[in-house]
Amino acid sequence: MAVGPGTLPEFFPVPGIRLGIASAGIKKPGRKDLVVFELAPGSRVAGIFTRNQFCAAPVTLSRRHLSLASPRYLLINTGNANAGTGAQGMEDAIACCRALADQASISMEEVLPFSTGVIGEPLPVTKIVNALPQALEAVSGDRWAEAASGIMTTDTRPKGASRQVEVNGRTVTISGISKGAGMIRPNMATMLGFIATDALIAPDLLQSLASGLGEKSFNRITIDGDTSTNDACMLMASGQYGGPEITADSPDLAALRDALEQVYLELAHAIVRDGEGATKFVTIDVSGAASQQEALDVAYTVAHSPLVKTALYASDPNWGRILAAVGRAGVSGLDLNALEIYLGDVCLVRHGGRAEDYSEERGQAVMDREEITIAIDLKRGDVRETVWTCDFSHNYVTINAEYRT
Amino acid sequence: MAVGPGTLPEFFPVPGIRLGIASAGIKKPGRKDLVVFELAPGSRVAGIFTRNQFCAAPVTLSRRHLSLASPRYLLINTGNANAGTGAQGMEDAIACCRALADQASISMEEVLPFSTGVIGEPLPVTKIVNALPQALEAVSGDRWAEAASGIMTTDTRPKGASRQVEVNGRTVTISGISKGAGMIRPNMATMLGFIATDALIAPDLLQSLASGLGEKSFNRITIDGDTSTNDACMLMASGQYGGPEITADSPDLAALRDALEQVYLELAHAIVRDGEGATKFVTIDVSGAASQQEALDVAYTVAHSPLVKTALYASDPNWGRILAAVGRAGVSGLDLNALEIYLGDVCLVRHGGRAEDYSEERGQAVMDREEITIAIDLKRGDVRETVWTCDFSHNYVTINAEYRT
Repeated sequence: MAVGPGTLPEFFPVPGIRLGIASAGIKKPGRKDLVVFELAPGSRVAGIFTRNQFCAAPVTLSRRHLSLASPRYLLINTGNANAGTGAQGMEDAIACCRALADQASISMEEVLPFSTGVIGEPLPVTKIVNALPQALEAVSGDRWAEAASGIMTTDTRPKGASRQVEVNGRTVTISGISKGAGMIRPNMATMLGFIATDALIAPDLLQSLASGLGEKSFNRITIDGDTSTNDACMLMASGQYGGPEITADSPDLAALRDALEQVYLELAHAIVRDGEGATKFVTIDVSGAASQQEALDVAYTVAHSPLVKTALYASDPNWGRILAAVGRAGVSGLDLNALEIYLGDVCLVRHGGRAEDYSEERGQAVMDREEITIAIDLKRGDVRETVWTCDFSHNYVTINAEYRT
Repeated sequence: MAVGPGTLPEFFPVPGIRLGIASAGIKKPGRKDLVVFELAPGSRVAGIFTRNQFCAAPVTLSRRHLSLASPRYLLINTGNANAGTGAQGMEDAIACCRALADQASISMEEVLPFSTGVIGEPLPVTKIVNALPQALEAVSGDRWAEAASGIMTTDTRPKGASRQVEVNGRTVTISGISKGAGMIRPNMATMLGFIATDALIAPDLLQSLASGLGEKSFNRITIDGDTSTNDACMLMASGQYGGPEITADSPDLAALRDALEQVYLELAHAIVRDGEGATKFVTIDVSGAASQQEALDVAYTVAHSPLVKTALYASDPNWGRILAAVGRAGVSGLDLNALEIYLGDVCLVRHGGRAEDYSEERGQAVMDREEITIAIDLKRGDVRETVWTCDFSHNYVTINAEYRT
């Protein structure tokens, strides 16, 4: 049902980063539900977290620890989101971090916890703690594919990306995994991303990259407009690539940023492609905006419109619905007669109505494809933003309207 | 499929207001697709219109005429929305108004046009003009039920309300009809409301009532978040009730306002009950807000959340989805641990998680009903807002994902 082949790449191991997997039996016995990232000393980490105010204990704790220490471990569990668990949830998250810290002879603040899965149920701390030795004993640099599967909840397939790029005459490796497909009761299929590189990156630059790249990828995807309580996207840089520290002034920064951006985008897009019931991968490209805010308002209004999304499901080049969505996006003084809307390279709307040169055949050909681009040129500025989403199908409803048994 | 019985009331005729119906063959031959309201001289009219910037010619023209003259006729056609029709669309709307004005010996500005139906196709002016005599010849005060059917497009049933109230020792009558069920390609099932009364209401007060009552009813319903290009809700007051002019200081104003409010609410709710694929009528009541804006932000975020709406379809008391929607409503500094969420009178959420005294049985009993109230007390102020919506079902997708034949 997902869009596109979604094959995992061959992962390049990232020097300084090792992964471990375990079965803690958090929800399903025997399932790989615990993943650890082990970071060599000197590694730097930056990330972005959910903006949802209903925010799980692990998110609060990870944020806190990140501000206090350089992380040595990321501890990820599925099967339980430790969300909606109040004060007890915070204690439980702390207990897991402390247990790992004890086993690794580090301090608790050097562990970042991440949880995803059932909400409102207490984290099974004992099960997690008991599985830590298993997770830690066989850490290795080439367990990326297993980790990609290990962080899945409602995903139908694992998601990963891996590249190498020349920086300062040396090879830099970037590997990453992600998860997230929507929210299913009682699970919250949190959006998570973990990207690691052996580049040696100045701390401020690392945060700037994590924020900027995360913003333009993970924060530009939407399946149904809902954001989870546990979303996070972390960038880990071990610094072991063998070359000088990369700063904002480095000539090869552009090449590094481009490669990171490709990885971030692949991982973010993979989440959309695996969206619940998705049959279309849709790019909504808004250009000619007067500000970032209005570009995003337009893009998200179109991306969230149930009428546009059901039309996409129907492969229906319904310009009226797209224009109506643009018209209600709240852009002050928008001239509907000035803007243009394209489906792929076919002009659909011009002068406030269907383009005179539009042909049903050409428009239909675009909509029949699995990958569709809706391009909206507002013609009132030069700001551009892109958002990615999928369609609304019967399966979306089926998946999300589970009856209690 | 719609929610509740939806029976039309017995309509009270409104002195000074007569209705006419015709078949113009705009889209389907033989169908009643033209409705006129004839207003006695001295009648006053006020209304609210769509805020969608993609706004149809008739809306622009009605607004303009309303500012220039006291309307004598409302001219409503179905089968064609005259939207996305550019300059030609405006000429066509004018031509229809002019034709009616000629036949009634009045000026064009005294006619308010309203259109709903197919978009992007030229208004069949000749057909409409040719049907005007038929519409005008048998105008009568008791054709409300026919008119309710005459303005339908994608509605599955006609919608009306009618009441009487004592004002200044006299009987005031209020009758109204509405339409709107969502948007179907290529039609836009515009939301329209027409409420008439024989009360004699001071002009400023009339506008204030039309805006205020419209705001708290028609502007508080949402099926899928999409707003049409042709939405309008008009209040016509013939002034013929036999008593003194009602002003902001009249002692009986409260009774009149209450009666009008009941009619507005019935008509607006009827639209939600007939929402595409609706199986639930849902009241989302947000109280304890610090401002109207945040109350509405929370209410609409919950009302538009596909995950909440599919849970409603599944009769699933999914507190996590409701809380996640509240959490992303953008309310600055919201304390998730302070708020409370009720399903009917069953407390579902307290202290940031499922209420300790919540029982699955009681929650399920509420969700199994067709009429559901979700009450959210933000505990940070004293502002309250209510929004009404319906669920997302498989049928919603089916209706809106029509394949081209």
